[in-house]
Amino acid sequence: MFVAEGKKVICELMDAGLELHALFTIDVSAFDVVHQKLVYEVTQNELKQLSFLTTPQVGLAVFYIPQQKEVAQEALILALDDVRDPGNLGTIIRLCDWFGVKNLVCSLKTADCFNPKVIQATMGSITRVNVIYVDLPMFLKERNSGVKVFGTFMEGSSVYNETLPENGIIVMGNEANGISEDIEKFVDAKITIPRFGLDQKTESLNVATATAVILSEFKRR
Amino acid sequence: MFVAEGKKVICELMDAGLELHALFTIDVSAFDVVHQKLVYEVTQNELKQLSFLTTPQVGLAVFYIPQQKEVAQEALILALDDVRDPGNLGTIIRLCDWFGVKNLVCSLKTADCFNPKVIQATMGSITRVNVIYVDLPMFLKERNSGVKVFGTFMEGSSVYNETLPENGIIVMGNEANGISEDIEKFVDAKITIPRFGLDQKTESLNVATATAVILSEFKRR
Repeated sequence: MFVAEGKKVICELMDAGLELHALFTIDVSAFDVVHQKLVYEVTQNELKQLSFLTTPQVGLAVFYIPQQKEVAQEALILALDDVRDPGNLGTIIRLCDWFGVKNLVCSLKTADCFNPKVIQATMGSITRVNVIYVDLPMFLKERNSGVKVFGTFMEGSSVYNETLPENGIIVMGNEANGISEDIEKFVDAKITIPRFGLDQKTESLNVATATAVILSEFKRR
Repeated sequence: MFVAEGKKVICELMDAGLELHALFTIDVSAFDVVHQKLVYEVTQNELKQLSFLTTPQVGLAVFYIPQQKEVAQEALILALDDVRDPGNLGTIIRLCDWFGVKNLVCSLKTADCFNPKVIQATMGSITRVNVIYVDLPMFLKERNSGVKVFGTFMEGSSVYNETLPENGIIVMGNEANGISEDIEKFVDAKITIPRFGLDQKTESLNVATATAVILSEFKRR
């Protein structure tokens, strides 16, 4: 199970058909829950004790984690190789939602998408993006033939000049170490976002902002 | 004055010529400071009490805030209309550094770029981007003639189809409210990043990821 807080996020998750286990709220009338016995009215103080937030919202809900769906390989897939920061993962899920990327494939060491920080950061996008956790090297090895793997590397060729297909798998690497050697051997094309600032000390873009630019490049064409 | 922590950030700020007021460190040999009387050796425990971080680094330095430089209007300028979150501001400063945008003009209610969270998030980029705080409506009103103002609006025209000049001012708005009416009246062209996800519930991109896509579009051409 996982926790979600605030009226907006809770309602989006219920609307998307996720199964509710329990809802704790200071205002029962704020929510339209079919099974009233799942709803517990609590005081502001009790909610504060339950909440993961510094400023608790109107309610806190516990949902069952939905089953992972199969990944359709005829569309663009984003894959994460050990992205550890929940804030980055949340931002990346929102980006997938915006750019119409339906499937996000995560290595087993990537942050948990049901971490409360991720749920709050995605603002409901988690209901529209299929996030699955897999043995990533195995997933890439067993992909359908003809599906090209793109990986972001500092020494890659400019994403602005690359021919980008409508389907394919884009791999983004770990915050500190980038893409691991285990994954690199499955990469067909190494791409990069060129640096326009001249100073060599500018090290790299954050993985979430790099994902924004890469998805924009794949989708705009 | 402002605080910076960690060997890497402190050394980058010193290398960039910022004036040091004091350095507190558990390892004096880790830093190459000209004026030794500015360096105070402290214990791990004392550093922990001084530090803003949950895991203190090797040292904490206090620097003098450098003087704002004039903004050159013949280059691309990024302007922020009340971006309040220090994390977003830090990410945006790093993006400016990467994309070679030398001048970041902030409204008076934008987060303080010398906030410790911003300094840590910029990873030294703050030394390569000139961040100035101005009365933003006045700055836009008094800009040089011929300098076009671009603003991001949900109802703007696609940034992918827009003619984008090499100079100009790009305005990004507040996290919750976007660009204010006071600023909107100076905007010559309203632009947006098209949503590829079909679900209307996907509300908007985070201001930092939107800035990544917009700067990429201006610079790649």
